[in-house]
This record gives sequence, C-alpha cells and structure tokens, in this order.
Amino acid sequence: MQFMFKKRDNIKEVEEGKYLSPKFDENGLIPVITTDFQTGDILMHGYMNDEALKKTIETKEAYYWSRSRKKIWHKGQVSGFVQKVKEIRIDDDQDSIWLSVDIGNGASCHVGYRSCFYRSIPLGTIKSKATLELKFKDNKKIFDPNKVYKDEPSPTKL
Amino acid sequence: MQFMFKKRDNIKEVEEGKYLSPKFDENGLIPVITTDFQTGDILMHGYMNDEALKKTIETKEAYYWSRSRKKIWHKGQVSGFVQKVKEIRIDDDQDSIWLSVDIGNGASCHVGYRSCFYRSIPLGTIKSKATLELKFKDNKKIFDPNKVYKDEPSPTKL
Repeated sequence: MQFMFKKRDNIKEVEEGKYLSPKFDENGLIPVITTDFQTGDILMHGYMNDEALKKTIETKEAYYWSRSRKKIWHKGQVSGFVQKVKEIRIDDDQDSIWLSVDIGNGASCHVGYRSCFYRSIPLGTIKSKATLELKFKDNKKIFDPNKVYKDEPSPTKL
Repeated sequence: MQFMFKKRDNIKEVEEGKYLSPKFDENGLIPVITTDFQTGDILMHGYMNDEALKKTIETKEAYYWSRSRKKIWHKGQVSGFVQKVKEIRIDDDQDSIWLSVDIGNGASCHVGYRSCFYRSIPLGTIKSKATLELKFKDNKKIFDPNKVYKDEPSPTKL
C-alpha cells in the first residue's frame, strides 16, 4: 500500500476539502453502504478497516472487514459473486463509505437473495402491544446457501 | 410506544422470519442508510436507537440518534427539511436499516448539499506515497449552513 490518508485536523477541511481523511471508529472500522450500480438498490451494509478500504481502492474489488469472522473478507471469495467497484464516495464528515458495484446477475446476500434488504417494516401506529410483522419484498433466491457455503457457520449473530 | 421487538433467539427466524428483531450494538444503536425515494441516491448514513426507530415507524418521519449531541434528533427540526418516510427495510441479520424518504426539493446534508455523499474517491493503483484527492460530484448547495444553523456547533467530529 503506497498511499496515505490525510490526518483529520480541521473540520472545514474534512467536510469541504479534497483530501481523503476517513474516520475509523473505536474498533478501527468505517461503515460501508453497497449499492447495485445498475438498479441503485442497496445490496448490503458492511464495514471496512483501513486495509480493506485501501485494497478496495487499489484492486477495484470490494473488501470488507468481517466482524463475525474477525478478518479481512474479499467479498465473493466463496460464492463467486465478486463485487466490481464502479465508484466509491465518502460522506461529509468522512465517517461512512458508499460503494457502487457491479455484481452482474449475481447475489450479495448470504441468505441467497440479490440484496440483503428483502423485508420491509410496516409503517404507522400500532394499535395493540404487538410484534411487528415484516413483509417480504423479494422471494427469489439467486443461489442455495446450503450448497454454496456448506458447513460454514452463518455470519449472523444473535 | 405500544409495540415490541421480538427477541433474537434463533438465527433462521432472524434471517427468514417475519418478525422485527433489530440488533442494536453495544451503544444501543443500529446503522441507518437513507435514500431519496425519487432518485434512489443515498442521502446520508446515520444511527437510530430503539426509541428513534419506534418513533420513525409510528410517525412516518425520520428520527435518528445524534452521536455528537447525544440525543434523539428529529431530522429537519432546525433546517425544515423533514424526511417523510416512504418505506423502511431491514437486512438479513437485522442489524441495519434502509429508509427511503421524500425530502421534496430539500437537502439532507448539514454542509448544504442535497446528499452527504458529494465527493468520490479515485480508484486504482496509487504510484507514489501520495494523499488521495477527492473529486466533487455535486457543487450546488441547496442552502447556506451558516444562515440555517447559525451558531450551532458542527456535528462533524475530528
């Protein structure tokens, strides 16, 4: 890795300047939103550490930090659905990243759907002391996670 | 608040079930991606606590948890740019939220731009030990933050 991030020493510079000064949190991570460059849909929400961000910029393929496996994660390594990065943006205070990627006809979600956001939350006043019921917005799995991930433990933590 | 979240006691249920079982992190927060329902563009990345999520569902206006001010934050309270919620989705392991909102011709970024993601990061190999230069993708401010926020401190932290 041959390049550096600029030190965050001035709010105006961070917000309106032209230098990359990402803010990593107390765990050394920055949140990442990944969208499908064709449809604009959000595919997933993940995290990168310093190294994952640098590798993503340099290789133009998405690398994340897996919080469940506690290691750098080249997305698609197991499933084959590598994310080709079309654009990376950073927000005003440089503490979150937006990745626009090409996954062809593939999927991004370990459950098998194209996007991880396949369920919606009903809106409005809830009359009784009830548990909210989600609504499925996508019912088509692109792959069978049992075949693809075999005996690997689920990244989902309770 | 009259409704409850379901306890997370089963991975299959969290991932493929129909009940809302959000996971709040060690600070009691869940990350939120907010997009413009008209253009699909990402407007901002924020956080909600339990109460902000419930208020957003019930009022159909976006509430967040402000980490810099350490309080619930009704987006648009000062600027007037309230976010009318069109849809809320939750991801596979229910630890992040996608909010699709209507902000009319308004703005979402405290710096004055419509979206917080107005700068892109250049891709590819960096030849020398250089600081990366960001590229502005939006140059039009919707409002003047000095006029709107006056003496309020910037939410950006170094």
